[in-house]
Amino acid sequence: MLAAPQLQAFNPPRRTLMGPGPSDVYPEVLAAQSKPTIGHLDPLFVGMMDELKSLIQYAFQTQNEMTLAVSAPGSAGMETCFVNLVEPGETVIVCRNGVFGERMRQNVERVGATAVVVDNEWGEPVSVDAVAKALASHPEAKFLAFVHAETSTGALSDAQSLCALAKQHDCLSIVDAVTSLGGVELRVDDWGIDAIYAGSQKCLSCVPGLSPVSFSPAAVEKLKARKTPVQSWFLDQTLVMGYWSGEGKRSYHHTAPVNALYALHESLRLLAEEGLEQAWQRHQQMHLLLRQGLEKLGLQFVVNEGDRLPQLNAVYIPDGVNDAAVRQQLLQKYNLEIGAGLGALAGKAWRIGLMGYGARRENVALCLRALEEQLA
Amino acid sequence: MLAAPQLQAFNPPRRTLMGPGPSDVYPEVLAAQSKPTIGHLDPLFVGMMDELKSLIQYAFQTQNEMTLAVSAPGSAGMETCFVNLVEPGETVIVCRNGVFGERMRQNVERVGATAVVVDNEWGEPVSVDAVAKALASHPEAKFLAFVHAETSTGALSDAQSLCALAKQHDCLSIVDAVTSLGGVELRVDDWGIDAIYAGSQKCLSCVPGLSPVSFSPAAVEKLKARKTPVQSWFLDQTLVMGYWSGEGKRSYHHTAPVNALYALHESLRLLAEEGLEQAWQRHQQMHLLLRQGLEKLGLQFVVNEGDRLPQLNAVYIPDGVNDAAVRQQLLQKYNLEIGAGLGALAGKAWRIGLMGYGARRENVALCLRALEEQLA
Repeated sequence: MLAAPQLQAFNPPRRTLMGPGPSDVYPEVLAAQSKPTIGHLDPLFVGMMDELKSLIQYAFQTQNEMTLAVSAPGSAGMETCFVNLVEPGETVIVCRNGVFGERMRQNVERVGATAVVVDNEWGEPVSVDAVAKALASHPEAKFLAFVHAETSTGALSDAQSLCALAKQHDCLSIVDAVTSLGGVELRVDDWGIDAIYAGSQKCLSCVPGLSPVSFSPAAVEKLKARKTPVQSWFLDQTLVMGYWSGEGKRSYHHTAPVNALYALHESLRLLAEEGLEQAWQRHQQMHLLLRQGLEKLGLQFVVNEGDRLPQLNAVYIPDGVNDAAVRQQLLQKYNLEIGAGLGALAGKAWRIGLMGYGARRENVALCLRALEEQLA
Repeated sequence: MLAAPQLQAFNPPRRTLMGPGPSDVYPEVLAAQSKPTIGHLDPLFVGMMDELKSLIQYAFQTQNEMTLAVSAPGSAGMETCFVNLVEPGETVIVCRNGVFGERMRQNVERVGATAVVVDNEWGEPVSVDAVAKALASHPEAKFLAFVHAETSTGALSDAQSLCALAKQHDCLSIVDAVTSLGGVELRVDDWGIDAIYAGSQKCLSCVPGLSPVSFSPAAVEKLKARKTPVQSWFLDQTLVMGYWSGEGKRSYHHTAPVNALYALHESLRLLAEEGLEQAWQRHQQMHLLLRQGLEKLGLQFVVNEGDRLPQLNAVYIPDGVNDAAVRQQLLQKYNLEIGAGLGALAGKAWRIGLMGYGARRENVALCLRALEEQLA
């Protein structure tokens, strides 16, 4: 026998999480998650799942029947949209203005489809004009895919206009709302979004590991008309919906992550209690407070004012400042996490998150004071 | 705006879970899971992940470098093994003696590979002779895939002999250990298993949602020699290992399910504290106690004595007994969950789990007494 490791229980410190996610989790959500596990086919659990579906619908502002949480993180939510809707040989217009647009492109290629990439600079929103041109010159395209809120840069794109354009060109829209859901205005039905995915660990302030998704009736029709099977068994929504449908008996697909779903239920319940519009306003107010303080410290935003996400503030690291050393000091001295730059912004920017439960005045104050002390 | 649902917090009752999983979760694991969330790139979290890897290696009895937990349930662990190792056009011998062998076959087909199915009756173990014949008559086969412990029937197959056979025929072995890990003898290195996946929610008594996996050096070599990209971005182990490798800086792939990983760390730590062999013995002892009681009640096992899993006891429902009504009474009156039959055994058998923390004398006593009262 290989010997058993002798280890102590892990006791994490209490951090203030102001990076790009995971965000600070609501205390009520941590408590909900540790309630007793019950069976995933237990009638009481099934009732909780029905409530959860209505809560996800509210957060997305949709009446889409196919609305659920994928039992895995946001990148699995992204893959769920692509593998279910896109078939080999089809064309997808993919907008790339950061890490996650590039990830969409990789998903399209792994499906065996063709990605037509519309590039924008990192830090800029997706250009509606450039997308209009791409759609006009690619009449074979069946999808338009873009990131609503780019977590790698903090840029917000105009989802409403982009989805309207997609519709004009008979394309289905696939939207990444991982960082936008709960933090900025997002209206799935009003804007005509066809497939959308989010993450539990950003502005919902739930534990990481789940991905709320929703498919419009047109997307469901596309899924049902597939000529080839969905390449992923685990993410095949035609199978998963047998469990989530709520119409009569739920059939077993995979064992639901019971306790994580308790947590998601509680975080969305808290969002519904606050009200979506109130939550959007709160994020904006805290962003303005933070912005004022960061500008006083002489820090420059990566994104132009009109295109900034309130919940993800990317600022350039001042010349002569040691990126890693500052972040390490914040973590060790103040138990404060801010995010490093990612991709093209690695080593050049910090990403300061104000997400969900983390978008509070005490967090803004701590972050500004700690940065001031470390940059002095 | 669509109106916000007005909902109360969800308060599940305290059940005793004696179905096919999720099993009763250790109280320490529930507590570990609700510790404060920290960042997935936090140095303290990275340290916890290093420990977690050594704990998974211990549970599997392996020194495989590529050993980690997939951030999704066991069915995603299954898919991880197939999409990473099997390429389109290759042949896989798939053993089918229950629901999960059939699921393996579907995974093989979705990869674009060919499945040669070796069938055994439900309730029987995989026939080593039949597999030997299939291997001999399919020299083109590159893999042998089978389920060690069939959760749908309670049959245990001879993993050691099957893996030895695979090796003789230059095949890599892919083994489903979802229900076996922690409950019965399992030695990945000694038995020469090449790819294995398990689930958190069975004999580890952790919350559902994670899948420990391990790849042998030969499996890693096969993965590295692929001619085609892995079809799933989320499950691509060449990318995931950048985060799990532990060699220097961990690179971001997807946001790890931080709190669920706390839980897995604690459940495996408890297993290491008890000792694997002691845990195997405890499962066997509790099974013998349960078996004695079930036989006194006149209940017949689905699986022959020598092939039974201690942790999953499938018994035929006596003639004239209402399956659903009895399970409902157990749940409502005793807060006791036992499992329904699945697939070919639906409506014909019950599945009584004695898994991990659930394999205790008080659970055996409650189950026997409650069944006695309801069958009287």
